[in-house]
Amino acid sequence: MTTCPRVAVLTLSDRCSRGQTIDTSGPALAEMVQHRLGAEVVRRACLPDDRALIAKVLRDWADDPAAPDLILTTGGTGLAPRDVTPEATLEVLERRHNGLMELVRRRCYEKTPRAYLSRGEAGVRRRTLIINLPGSRRGVVESLEALLDILPHAVETLRGEVQDDGRAEAVALTGKVVRHEEGR
Amino acid sequence: MTTCPRVAVLTLSDRCSRGQTIDTSGPALAEMVQHRLGAEVVRRACLPDDRALIAKVLRDWADDPAAPDLILTTGGTGLAPRDVTPEATLEVLERRHNGLMELVRRRCYEKTPRAYLSRGEAGVRRRTLIINLPGSRRGVVESLEALLDILPHAVETLRGEVQDDGRAEAVALTGKVVRHEEGR
Amino acid sequence: MTTCPRVAVLTLSDRCSRGQTIDTSGPALAEMVQHRLGAEVVRRACLPDDRALIAKVLRDWADDPAAPDLILTTGGTGLAPRDVTPEATLEVLERRHNGLMELVRRRCYEKTPRAYLSRGEAGVRRRTLIINLPGSRRGVVESLEALLDILPHAVETLRGEVQDDGRAEAVALTGKVVRHEEGR
Repeated sequence: MTTCPRVAVLTLSDRCSRGQTIDTSGPALAEMVQHRLGAEVVRRACLPDDRALIAKVLRDWADDPAAPDLILTTGGTGLAPRDVTPEATLEVLERRHNGLMELVRRRCYEKTPRAYLSRGEAGVRRRTLIINLPGSRRGVVESLEALLDILPHAVETLRGEVQDDGRAEAVALTGKVVRHEEGR
Repeated sequence: MTTCPRVAVLTLSDRCSRGQTIDTSGPALAEMVQHRLGAEVVRRACLPDDRALIAKVLRDWADDPAAPDLILTTGGTGLAPRDVTPEATLEVLERRHNGLMELVRRRCYEKTPRAYLSRGEAGVRRRTLIINLPGSRRGVVESLEALLDILPHAVETLRGEVQDDGRAEAVALTGKVVRHEEGR
Repeated sequence: MTTCPRVAVLTLSDRCSRGQTIDTSGPALAEMVQHRLGAEVVRRACLPDDRALIAKVLRDWADDPAAPDLILTTGGTGLAPRDVTPEATLEVLERRHNGLMELVRRRCYEKTPRAYLSRGEAGVRRRTLIINLPGSRRGVVESLEALLDILPHAVETLRGEVQDDGRAEAVALTGKVVRHEEGR
């Protein structure tokens, strides 16, 4: 990647937003993307489980001229009555991405079949990839771990730095044929 | 769980609704939730493959003050021209749940790759989890079997009896820190 | 199957549509469905990554009195800024089919975890099944390979030639009970 990924971390939790509980998942995510992806954490926030508010912040962050490559959310993806992170996310996404959450659930299954209880969504708004991760510290770390090998390629593609899902042969500016088959 | 899950079973089949075929899948489901989940079956019905009618019944059941925790449907999830159960379900869902059907297909794959031909959807309306299962007796039994280990936790979370996808630590009323990490 | 499947192949690529690159994925798909599924290729086209245009062609093909059983697209399913094939497809689908793409990603994972980066969608418009495959020649061949065993049954069901997801027993015109449990 030409420059390091710029990542925003959004914690969704009524209790954390009221200061009744300490957010350990957001900091764990931030540390992990810095150390494992060489990413720069450009934004951090903690909000209550309020659908309209979550959607507004996701929109503001993604539509900013200095938008991050990646917004990772933690919390609000389960079946509890107040869990609405996926709904807020679907509201702002322009292009959905089902495969990313399938991969998270597939790989986390070995640890616990309850990985399939997460309702997390993923997708793109403008040039920003938004991914919903679960709320527990363990769940969020395992879920991000499941994406680490493919995230750099995802960000490069989104930036337009590589041709993905493109033709087998791309005629580069020099006229030289460049093969990208491995990029699917 | 504080009380046993309350389950409704809805059979979708033109022929069964006209009495041309005997519904064996609905009764198989009902027996299975009673014996394997300790559930109470609170409603049973059989409807033709009519999208508006299916949506109406799902809405009526989920919006009732005595709504069940879980509505299991059987039938109408395939590619046949009249199969519209997923469309009726999507119409009434407030919060979708992709993971549950992914788990069904993943686990049933060992029996037959055709498990991936099911178009079943799942999700929540108010406090009721709705899950589409296939129409054949064998398919419906295998599909429900694939969910038995996680359904009790799903219902408890939906009821608000446990914190799921929540913070790693929840400050209980006593002020004691309760760990829920295993709940993701 | 009473008659061979009728298949249309649609290539989505800005560069191929401008003649800057030779489309190798479309021809590979066409050859594969002919030799591996005994299919007749009834339509072929190559379009730029233009959402409205792609949706229009999908609609025209599926709404034609001589509509194909299956439309396979190649290209435009990734995260690149111009990739909009899934969005154009979702716009025209009447009934979504999540399982088919899950199966593709599941089976292609052994070759590369990047299979999960594809955003491909699948589903039905009228009597035509539409499936988005990736753009690279290798990706498209591996993805179609992952569906070959279940596609004939899918097409037969869509045509109404077999009962799928139906009752365990169907009373045939003769009154004889026909078992279709293996069809789920």
